[in-house]
Amino acid sequence: MECQSILIKNTIIIGSEIKKSSILIENNLISKIDDDLSSNDADEVINGEGKVLIPGLINTHTHLSMSLMRGLADDMPLDTWLNNYIWPAEANLSGEHCYAGALLACAEMIKSGTTTFNDMYFFIDDVAKAVDESGMRGMLSHGMIDLGDEEKRKKEFKESIRIINKCHNTSDGRIKVSLGPHAPYTCSMELLQWVRRKADELGVRIHIHVSETEFEVEQIIDSYGARPFEYLDEIDFLGDDVLAAHGVWLSDSEMDIIRDKKVKISHNPISNMKLASGVSPVSKMISKGINVSLGTDGAASNNNLDLLEEMKTAALLQKIYNLDSTLLSAQHVFEMATINGAKALGIEKELGTIEVDKKADLTLLNFNKTHLTPYRHPLSHLVYSAQGSDVDTVICNGQILMQHRKLLTLDEQEVIQQAEEASKDLLS
Amino acid sequence: MECQSILIKNTIIIGSEIKKSSILIENNLISKIDDDLSSNDADEVINGEGKVLIPGLINTHTHLSMSLMRGLADDMPLDTWLNNYIWPAEANLSGEHCYAGALLACAEMIKSGTTTFNDMYFFIDDVAKAVDESGMRGMLSHGMIDLGDEEKRKKEFKESIRIINKCHNTSDGRIKVSLGPHAPYTCSMELLQWVRRKADELGVRIHIHVSETEFEVEQIIDSYGARPFEYLDEIDFLGDDVLAAHGVWLSDSEMDIIRDKKVKISHNPISNMKLASGVSPVSKMISKGINVSLGTDGAASNNNLDLLEEMKTAALLQKIYNLDSTLLSAQHVFEMATINGAKALGIEKELGTIEVDKKADLTLLNFNKTHLTPYRHPLSHLVYSAQGSDVDTVICNGQILMQHRKLLTLDEQEVIQQAEEASKDLLS
Repeated sequence: MECQSILIKNTIIIGSEIKKSSILIENNLISKIDDDLSSNDADEVINGEGKVLIPGLINTHTHLSMSLMRGLADDMPLDTWLNNYIWPAEANLSGEHCYAGALLACAEMIKSGTTTFNDMYFFIDDVAKAVDESGMRGMLSHGMIDLGDEEKRKKEFKESIRIINKCHNTSDGRIKVSLGPHAPYTCSMELLQWVRRKADELGVRIHIHVSETEFEVEQIIDSYGARPFEYLDEIDFLGDDVLAAHGVWLSDSEMDIIRDKKVKISHNPISNMKLASGVSPVSKMISKGINVSLGTDGAASNNNLDLLEEMKTAALLQKIYNLDSTLLSAQHVFEMATINGAKALGIEKELGTIEVDKKADLTLLNFNKTHLTPYRHPLSHLVYSAQGSDVDTVICNGQILMQHRKLLTLDEQEVIQQAEEASKDLLS
Repeated sequence: MECQSILIKNTIIIGSEIKKSSILIENNLISKIDDDLSSNDADEVINGEGKVLIPGLINTHTHLSMSLMRGLADDMPLDTWLNNYIWPAEANLSGEHCYAGALLACAEMIKSGTTTFNDMYFFIDDVAKAVDESGMRGMLSHGMIDLGDEEKRKKEFKESIRIINKCHNTSDGRIKVSLGPHAPYTCSMELLQWVRRKADELGVRIHIHVSETEFEVEQIIDSYGARPFEYLDEIDFLGDDVLAAHGVWLSDSEMDIIRDKKVKISHNPISNMKLASGVSPVSKMISKGINVSLGTDGAASNNNLDLLEEMKTAALLQKIYNLDSTLLSAQHVFEMATINGAKALGIEKELGTIEVDKKADLTLLNFNKTHLTPYRHPLSHLVYSAQGSDVDTVICNGQILMQHRKLLTLDEQEVIQQAEEASKDLLS
């Protein structure tokens, strides 16, 4: 449903302060926030009583199409999980699989209040097709791996450039493309240096996994005589356009490099816990002034894409790991899932907070629930009590994607059916 | 809605094996599990297609009425939380508050698939009234604290006996009462020894907090020259009827005592993480053969009562704490939330698994959801992907408490309204 103007009336807004007010959306922008807005001002009026309005959530690290592999393999060592389950499945992937998996992931993310995500995977034009249809905002990258093989490297360059040319800045600017070198231990120095040059030349961002496991840190030390962020700094790879996912095993001097080079970190606590990768020093990074945002990783290692669950888990993990219940407050993790996510993708001028003239990407939660009663601590309830299904209405770029839990851009049953079939085809 | 017989047709049953079948409930018992049951056999037929049936979940440690304090105070040290927020609020508690808070908690638990819980709090006859109305199964205890004061001790004895006489084995046996000495550091040796004698004399069970924080362990060592479970063993307090909540700070020899005395442990991972209490050695206890079940603790330190969330968090916490992704599998945490909970309360012959002749306490989840697709790994999805709101229908003691998410025994809006008012009254 596209509306010229939408009024959300009398709702609790978690903005620069938490207050009850009304908000007017015109075209794709937030145009007014005012207690006195009248229903006559808008084509569509949404009653916000008993509800809470937040910026659309931003998931800064995921692999949409892996939703087809949800539940395929749990409770096993990382190398068994990868070698015996994930990589054999990925060897059979087609564009049709990736389209069906991405549609499922988009539907799931909308239903749990996410409006923007940062993806890395394969068959990116098929993923882009799903994102276009969903109405969401996504930054997509083709995952590049060469393992030192020159032929493979050339193919990766070609595919990355093809996708940038085809999909970057499409769908009214909702879809952007970045460069996606998989990780320092799977990409050669030549590949990483090419990525740095191309990113500067084309003005696109970089999305990479760094230091998810202790094993890969040791591999980099063996190969290059330096820890991953030291090595990346030495080859001049780092910059404020680099988003590094995970950042679990970091030395103090690496954190200083990350801060000085303004590298963005995407923290993925549930995936890190489930795969027993390790605990990222998030509180320390925040105290150093590093921008840390939140990601779910793929559904194969989470096993969902629910940023509300991720916020709570992030807060709990820092508290228990450091035995300090004051660390990573509700306010901190809320910022990680909103404005820090926008900063991570370089879109903080347009997104990540509820302010006049920002893009209308908004998530409205229904707080008229037993587990959200009493209704008077909205930020606490959002982080510590809510679940994905409390999301009632989702707006992205001024378009209503879900209203009262009904998807408007996608046919939910058709998406589920298509994903079932694609998953059967992929994994049988 | 009370039915003589209920048929749940063609559903995935997570029983001794996972299989698709149908199940017949007659009066308050599971009477048949068979693929060929016909709709003519039952007064009420529930279509189980696309759904998954599990035993009603069992929450072995909670404080229902603390739901009124949900979100009151987060992200602070335990002593500030207790001294400045929780204890001042509790000083003003009335029976009316506890009734409203317990009703809210029952509604929330039913909506997330729990049918049985183990509570410790105050104004227990008011709590029992709420539990009776809800149709749930609960073991209730008056929380006894004397801090060495003889007058207070006598009052606690009197109140505990009054509640047992009034409420134990009421509501068709759904409500049982146990003795609830708060903890070794808040109860004198005299109180604990009286509890042990009375439990034997009256045939009631014991519910106590033990070793939640490192601080209380040190206090017990200072006072008695032994660690908490060593001290409790020395005074002959322990037995197979004792349920100890938390059990975070345990030495190896304490775990051996717990095993030898068949003490039951209730693990509360979210509360332990949120208050930064510490990590319970759950995997080690399970490998020693100790019965570990799951609890949410009160909503003031969680901040909800959702056992699905608790299962996932329990699994994640053991994996990350021990850096071993194979620990605490989906199967393990599922058993913790079902059959181990029944064992913890001494009701495993009647509850905790789906078997013919067991009580009909059942939770049916709707798996026709984006985040539960593909529909083929029911146990994995239940633990790692599901959320409380995926619960569709809940049956306790053969009575349907919720159908298609509508509460049948309680008026949800009235419960919410009453809790709002009670919370305002309590905390203003």
